Amino acid sequence: MLSKSKIKIITSLAYKKYRDESGLFVAEGAKLISDLSTAFHCEWLFYTPQWENEVQQLQADEKIAVEEKELHKISAQKSPQGMLAVFRKKTPVKITATALSGQLSLALDDVQDPGNLGTIIRIADWFGIRHIFCSTATADAFNPKTVQATMGALSRVELHYVNLPEFFSEMKDIPVYGTFLDGTDLYTRDLSPNGIIVMGNEGNGISPEIAQLVTDKLMIPNYPKDAPTSESLNVAVATAIVCGEFRRRM
Amino acid sequence: MLSKSKIKIITSLAYKKYRDESGLFVAEGAKLISDLSTAFHCEWLFYTPQWENEVQQLQADEKIAVEEKELHKISAQKSPQGMLAVFRKKTPVKITATALSGQLSLALDDVQDPGNLGTIIRIADWFGIRHIFCSTATADAFNPKTVQATMGALSRVELHYVNLPEFFSEMKDIPVYGTFLDGTDLYTRDLSPNGIIVMGNEGNGISPEIAQLVTDKLMIPNYPKDAPTSESLNVAVATAIVCGEFRRRM
Repeated sequence: MLSKSKIKIITSLAYKKYRDESGLFVAEGAKLISDLSTAFHCEWLFYTPQWENEVQQLQADEKIAVEEKELHKISAQKSPQGMLAVFRKKTPVKITATALSGQLSLALDDVQDPGNLGTIIRIADWFGIRHIFCSTATADAFNPKTVQATMGALSRVELHYVNLPEFFSEMKDIPVYGTFLDGTDLYTRDLSPNGIIVMGNEGNGISPEIAQLVTDKLMIPNYPKDAPTSESLNVAVATAIVCGEFRRRM
Repeated sequence: MLSKSKIKIITSLAYKKYRDESGLFVAEGAKLISDLSTAFHCEWLFYTPQWENEVQQLQADEKIAVEEKELHKISAQKSPQGMLAVFRKKTPVKITATALSGQLSLALDDVQDPGNLGTIIRIADWFGIRHIFCSTATADAFNPKTVQATMGALSRVELHYVNLPEFFSEMKDIPVYGTFLDGTDLYTRDLSPNGIIVMGNEGNGISPEIAQLVTDKLMIPNYPKDAPTSESLNVAVATAIVCGEFRRRM
């Protein structure tokens, strides 16, 4: 049974303001919920009767059986997947330069699209990147669209919303890589096995303020050189190509 | 002035059935329309008064000034960008094995998401891939979402909807690459500068029928090996990593 107060709380979690206030976020679908359960505390778990067996394997403060039509009231999806969970976000932990040394990390300078952010989190997970540092104007990782796009990678990758220039100033001695149209060829340049790779905004790329803090400017070469081509690659696509090249060398 | 009959035709172009029947498709925004004009014949060009100068540079059978609120009636976007064009698709040209020899091409085995397809077309453009062969169940390249996601790459990349098994049987002697979870490491395997790279469906990967026709099974290694990670990469992301590695070797 779904109370009116719960419906109100859950639908409010579509908005960042209420996610920030409550510290909660929503995930849908048995596979995703099972993955996220390994990393996040589940407060409420709603399910339709046919998912009863799967629900028994999961931890939650409260497990609530609902009708299909009740699930529609709280789901953000056209075809709800029979299970919806409300998880508690983790308390942010401050990361020091020492903790990052020897690792590859990502920084996002105002990536706006929740789907792109989700895809980037999934790429980070694939390539063993454990920390993503986001400017405060970057899309919220707990946006329902992002959560669904990560396909569970949020359980292994930690996101930190920080003042990026301050963050870089604290990370002295760690190389900062970024892609620019006038950088040097990613495939021929020396790359260290540790460092922070900055990816920029969809429309504007890396901002001038952050560009100053990049120590190694890279460029993804198009082919053939000087041929007319798309002006840029999608930010998630560029992230994948750069991370893949770092990992290829390792 | 926008006639009722034009409104009806343009809104119908949101559906594949009507795009197929009429041979027409819609693109929005000055930059995209200008790019597509280099490759496609423009039948109607609708614009709000502030775009009058830009419109003078463009060819179209009919240029029609409209009010902002009229544009809303034909636009698929929440915030129309002041210019909407109806283009004519090109007549499909049959591609022979000879035409493809020495080139890198892509084949898509039921890629379903219009946004993924658009991103893949943009990746192909970046890496100088001129032909994409799509199974008939692959999303339509002239879907408005795909057209917008390509950002003009459709003017340089040609899509061919074919019976993929028949197509591969005609392309004998051209290596066919595909990514599989049990393929061999992309980064250590020999890659030829020519060939066809097959990418599979978002949920199911490459179908068993097509898998039999793949001559070189590749795998994108995750990092570190054997670590728990996302089960797969987004299909556009995987396309980018594979194409990037082919081009890096050239």
